[in-house]
Amino acid sequence: MSVADELLKSNEDFARNFSLGELSVRPKRHVAVLACMDSRILFEHCLGLHPGDAHMIRNAGGIATTDAIRSLIVSHHLLDTEEFIIINHTDCGLLKVREDELKSRLTEKMGTPADEPRHFYAFDDLEANVRQQMQRVKSHPWIPKHIPVRGFVYDVRTGKLKEVEGS
Amino acid sequence: MSVADELLKSNEDFARNFSLGELSVRPKRHVAVLACMDSRILFEHCLGLHPGDAHMIRNAGGIATTDAIRSLIVSHHLLDTEEFIIINHTDCGLLKVREDELKSRLTEKMGTPADEPRHFYAFDDLEANVRQQMQRVKSHPWIPKHIPVRGFVYDVRTGKLKEVEGS
Repeated sequence: MSVADELLKSNEDFARNFSLGELSVRPKRHVAVLACMDSRILFEHCLGLHPGDAHMIRNAGGIATTDAIRSLIVSHHLLDTEEFIIINHTDCGLLKVREDELKSRLTEKMGTPADEPRHFYAFDDLEANVRQQMQRVKSHPWIPKHIPVRGFVYDVRTGKLKEVEGS
Repeated sequence: MSVADELLKSNEDFARNFSLGELSVRPKRHVAVLACMDSRILFEHCLGLHPGDAHMIRNAGGIATTDAIRSLIVSHHLLDTEEFIIINHTDCGLLKVREDELKSRLTEKMGTPADEPRHFYAFDDLEANVRQQMQRVKSHPWIPKHIPVRGFVYDVRTGKLKEVEGS
């Protein structure tokens, strides 16, 4: 049985006991979280969020890519969020790799170069990386200046968030 | 008190009772999920996933953008996932909007045009949209052909996943 089939079976149990009722498409707590895709972090648990509370945007690293910014624009302008939170974490896969090495390894392994993605956003300084993502979000012309953008580092060994002061 | 401060307070409780121990950076169930950022969907609940099980990649719509594909490449090539799952859902914010209207609305409201994002990926046919994302992932030169890429629609009123047959 593939993992997808196992997850489908779990979903049958979930749907049988489904009791969320009618929740709005607009997040109740008016907040969007941009974070890493890391499997160890269930941000709903770590942050005390419930279904309907917050948008969860996740990618490799928790990077404010053009796509993450697209999601934040949709989140605020269409769905009324008014605060953004960015979370990177210790022991991230992108802390263990170098951009150029990764690209040559992929080209060699797959036998084909690829134009996109142009960047993997590997990094080596966690707090500086968080600050860079905050800056990218804040400086986008379609992100209103009144929206607070706060940044954090999550420690996977302790479950604790530490705030990173903005630049 | 801002929502970010409330979430930080919740995180203090979470960290006080933290008991996940040492989990690997490599997802235990070797699966990556690409899904929408929608606040109503806690995919860990819906799919029976536990901390450490799966990568969670999320953006507005659950779209296989270049950035989502970047995350899937990192997921497979660096962190050993071997199955990908794509989930879109009913009542999605991007089903309620038109691409060109959204762009003119943003330029007018913010008083500044922006080069990026070039697309918002609004859509009007849910199943066709899922199929398109599956196709984008499968056709990328750095996604190995042996990786199963399965697509689903999640119904926010029932909690049920329905599989979309691939193209």
